[in-house]
Amino acid sequence: MIFSSRLIEDAVDAFSRLPGIGRKTALRMVLHLLKEDKDSVSRFSDTISRMRSDICFCPQCNNISDNGPCGICSDPLRNRTIVCVVENIRDVISIESTRQFNGLYHVLGGLLSPLDGIGPDQLQLSNLIGRLDQGGIEEIIMALNPTIEGDTTVYYISRQLRDFPVRITGIARGVSFGGELEYTDELTLARSIAKRLPVETYVNTENKN
Amino acid sequence: MIFSSRLIEDAVDAFSRLPGIGRKTALRMVLHLLKEDKDSVSRFSDTISRMRSDICFCPQCNNISDNGPCGICSDPLRNRTIVCVVENIRDVISIESTRQFNGLYHVLGGLLSPLDGIGPDQLQLSNLIGRLDQGGIEEIIMALNPTIEGDTTVYYISRQLRDFPVRITGIARGVSFGGELEYTDELTLARSIAKRLPVETYVNTENKN
Repeated sequence: MIFSSRLIEDAVDAFSRLPGIGRKTALRMVLHLLKEDKDSVSRFSDTISRMRSDICFCPQCNNISDNGPCGICSDPLRNRTIVCVVENIRDVISIESTRQFNGLYHVLGGLLSPLDGIGPDQLQLSNLIGRLDQGGIEEIIMALNPTIEGDTTVYYISRQLRDFPVRITGIARGVSFGGELEYTDELTLARSIAKRLPVETYVNTENKN
Repeated sequence: MIFSSRLIEDAVDAFSRLPGIGRKTALRMVLHLLKEDKDSVSRFSDTISRMRSDICFCPQCNNISDNGPCGICSDPLRNRTIVCVVENIRDVISIESTRQFNGLYHVLGGLLSPLDGIGPDQLQLSNLIGRLDQGGIEEIIMALNPTIEGDTTVYYISRQLRDFPVRITGIARGVSFGGELEYTDELTLARSIAKRLPVETYVNTENKN
């Protein structure tokens, strides 16, 4: 694309570096911002710049936070005996959006993946062990993606934590709610038959946290 | 979605106001920017803020410009006898990207649309007439969308310009290059048969500007 303005070209370049944004979509965003008044565009850019410069990470769970411990760790109403171990911040947002979990989190910042050169040292594991050392935690829920990397990480962490008096659980796996058996992959279907549950537990969907 | 950070929530809100961006895509962008270093994010936001505050419009053709007359109007190598009338800046970028047009532009800023309350006063018509008054223009190419609004605007402008010694032309309409007759709409196909051309002109695709 040929732009007759250097300013527009720079802005299109900036937007098109975002994930999933090509140059045409970037141009559409730039032309949209051109139509808005100067104050609202300067608010837009201030919000983004402030977000990056002021954000910090919770020293306890590695979740994002506006200052010091994150809103979840500092909430006195949360159940401090259960910690849900997740890969990244996006997973925290997904689980929080279900409004069904009332415990705390621990963000690993990745999954073990020898092929990508990610070993235990690249994960936020030492402060998880530090939290367990402090005591008070009764259950660790491993909520990692059901992939080879996720399963490897679950296995590694559960070995690391075997000396702590803590129950280690994993999220349930099986056919999605509303999914169709016909379109479920063979591995999931085979596992969901092998790990079948008594019918009574089907009805009992209430939150036990 | 529930965020545990006000900064993230504000940034997601800001991005999701852009056209075609929902909250999930906005979150993906925000998390992408969180991974980048602070300097590059502040450059990103500066680029956008500067783009909106410093951009101006060419006093001659209403195209966007970094300062004063735009790069096209001030380019001494462009053919000043031909002016291509387009609806908006995006059309200028599209035509410039073909690298086949060497004349000047005139951006109307919209099309006549009585239903949307857009009359001749909302379009940048008076300075088009001012440009014709100055003389030197031999041809006006109407490159507007082939819609009711586009055709109405072409008709209106050609009536306004009838007293000027200028040739008024419109862009060719017909079956798209690479398109299939089977999937071409009836109106386009009927018009392309009615406005058929001698076969010699098919081969002659060189630029005559």
